Amino acid sequence: MVEITPQVESELPNGDGVCVCFVQHTTCGLTINENADPDVKRDMMGWLRRLVPQFPTTPSPEAGGTPPTAGEEPFFRHYEHNSDAHIKSSLIGSSVTVPFADGRLLLGRWQGIYLCEFDGPRERKVILQIVNAE
Amino acid sequence: MVEITPQVESELPNGDGVCVCFVQHTTCGLTINENADPDVKRDMMGWLRRLVPQFPTTPSPEAGGTPPTAGEEPFFRHYEHNSDAHIKSSLIGSSVTVPFADGRLLLGRWQGIYLCEFDGPRERKVILQIVNAE
Amino acid sequence: MVEITPQVESELPNGDGVCVCFVQHTTCGLTINENADPDVKRDMMGWLRRLVPQFPTTPSPEAGGTPPTAGEEPFFRHYEHNSDAHIKSSLIGSSVTVPFADGRLLLGRWQGIYLCEFDGPRERKVILQIVNAE
Repeated sequence: MVEITPQVESELPNGDGVCVCFVQHTTCGLTINENADPDVKRDMMGWLRRLVPQFPTTPSPEAGGTPPTAGEEPFFRHYEHNSDAHIKSSLIGSSVTVPFADGRLLLGRWQGIYLCEFDGPRERKVILQIVNAE
Repeated sequence: MVEITPQVESELPNGDGVCVCFVQHTTCGLTINENADPDVKRDMMGWLRRLVPQFPTTPSPEAGGTPPTAGEEPFFRHYEHNSDAHIKSSLIGSSVTVPFADGRLLLGRWQGIYLCEFDGPRERKVILQIVNAE
Repeated sequence: MVEITPQVESELPNGDGVCVCFVQHTTCGLTINENADPDVKRDMMGWLRRLVPQFPTTPSPEAGGTPPTAGEEPFFRHYEHNSDAHIKSSLIGSSVTVPFADGRLLLGRWQGIYLCEFDGPRERKVILQIVNAE
């Protein structure tokens, strides 16, 4: 999880509106979370790694030991072997939308904007689109 | 998962802005993910189905075998028996917000916009609201 | 889960656009889901509580009984002992973006906007930023 709050804020115009941050990738995500104790990032990424293993076992633990239903294989089949990263990307989301006023993000005291890398390290690109209120 | 990227793009005006795609339903969702290998969709929907079973067992597998806390029943209680679909809807989200420029969605090379059906097949409606930058 | 739909709708101007609802906190979230049967809220919050326990056991149930990988501890380390709430906040999301027309939210018949409290009760603040279409 890489914080990008300063880079986002430096691109804001004066005035009020919303800033849409968007990643053009399918194996990373954007989220807003605590920017004080780095253990929050560690706990979140570790938990996600355990929730979505790269190679799920059989029977899948999420299924509570019940076998897969007919026609459903328990293993990921995507040939790049990064379905876990694609799934985390959709769980966390490809964008965050943040209000701003007077050219400052309206983030809470403990909030930061983070890129969550699920299949890296890679070079990633975050698009910002700003729309003004009024 | 049904791709709706072409339908969304065909509604865009010239110019720049953001396009909000929104479903008016509580048992499906919208997400952005890979549009190349269909196994990504298969792996994601299969994984979600195992993560949120329609009829969870007791004790819940997510609880690691610990019994439910006092006052908390392990089974879903919603009378329509589709709490799993409602939960997936909130995990994936009811909308995606995508920047566009010159009338084209600013999607990455492998990104597509997908409706995720968790309680279908049903007829679904996706609302588009477009706001211009500047 | 506390419904805030009426409060949001009462702030809308006439005309069309999108309304961004945003929480300035890292241990709650915003989502859209069914506002008819309260058992949906109960099932969702109960399921999330089981999915992300405050104190995960070892070996983590999500890992299907496999031990944590080297360098990865199975327990949350964040000193406030609310990593579960931070994780749920990122899964559910800090904002919802809802289209409106003629001063009315374009919600489906069964949709309501909910604040999901994962570490309360606390006083929470929801920011609304409205951007007009056209």
